[in-house]
Amino acid sequence: MITIYGMGDSGNCYKPRLLCALLGIPFRHVEISTAAGQTREAAFLAKNPNGKVPLLELEDGTLLPESNAILWYLGEGSAFVPDTRRDRAMMLSWMFFEQYSHEPTVAVRRSLLVYPHRKADATPERLEATLQAGNAALSVLAQRLDEAQFLVGGAPSLADIALYAYTHNADEGGFDLGRWPSIRAWLARIEALARYRPQSWLP
Amino acid sequence: MITIYGMGDSGNCYKPRLLCALLGIPFRHVEISTAAGQTREAAFLAKNPNGKVPLLELEDGTLLPESNAILWYLGEGSAFVPDTRRDRAMMLSWMFFEQYSHEPTVAVRRSLLVYPHRKADATPERLEATLQAGNAALSVLAQRLDEAQFLVGGAPSLADIALYAYTHNADEGGFDLGRWPSIRAWLARIEALARYRPQSWLP
Repeated sequence: MITIYGMGDSGNCYKPRLLCALLGIPFRHVEISTAAGQTREAAFLAKNPNGKVPLLELEDGTLLPESNAILWYLGEGSAFVPDTRRDRAMMLSWMFFEQYSHEPTVAVRRSLLVYPHRKADATPERLEATLQAGNAALSVLAQRLDEAQFLVGGAPSLADIALYAYTHNADEGGFDLGRWPSIRAWLARIEALARYRPQSWLP
Repeated sequence: MITIYGMGDSGNCYKPRLLCALLGIPFRHVEISTAAGQTREAAFLAKNPNGKVPLLELEDGTLLPESNAILWYLGEGSAFVPDTRRDRAMMLSWMFFEQYSHEPTVAVRRSLLVYPHRKADATPERLEATLQAGNAALSVLAQRLDEAQFLVGGAPSLADIALYAYTHNADEGGFDLGRWPSIRAWLARIEALARYRPQSWLP
């Protein structure tokens, strides 16, 4: 069985768990807490020198870091990866957008507000910068969802899972999703998928 | 013919140009300067609402943003994408590492030092933070290259191109590559590939 090392409360770590649920892939969850400093301990750094979760461990011992690369590994060949070269690239485009423009703003602002160990970093300047940049990222997402049910190809793909992870609880980062009805409707479509599980779910 | 909108001096924009050169794919270059504010103008925002280059335009008008997604589109089916599911995921893992841990530190520090329009952002705190985080990212890269000729599967892949773009001129960001001989040797291996072109090359 595969193992996912991750923190229950992390959106990046929720992504592979949600995909496993949707695809019916069994897995073992091992809790590794960034908040408690476990990702910087020698035992974990030996598995991922970049010191981040999630980390996927295959049955043969292969170690795969980076949430969106784990999504790719688990999803390749499933209905969550589009059939055409163009749509696969569009899907990856949204996933890189997520990691560069959305996660470092929307998710980081939530972490600054939610986690006690981030308090020293939660300066007024940082909160203002992540608010502005996070709203800009959410606007780009909303502009796409104004015209489409899902991000790519008319069906849910890995891109929707990647962007769902830190959009569904963006209110905890002080973002007002009421500004973007198309985002709210898209979140509801994902939550209506067969075998959907909430972030709190662990196997 | 495909069109790549990009800034000549940007590493993110160099990535697709370098892959086109290596694969012999003809393309048209349209200069769009982030430094001159052109990515924030209405005409460009109509093409990419996220206001970033590079942007790939296909012959049918399809618009594809995000440098590493463009690499995927151009590279799928070529020798620069590995044959196995595991290695494709490992390749993408390095590409997400590049956009999350390497580009926002190594490349951003270079931009703070090189571009006059970034001067106001180049505070001592920001320069120190990007130096530390950039060195950490380069250490992770070096640790892999201490044991392998290329990042994945023993041959050059899209991951090597993605990470080459902002590593080869990291010295302009104040990073001392002399600390990591395995990185220097890997840069030389990429520069020795048939049809390699430097960042200054335009078609």
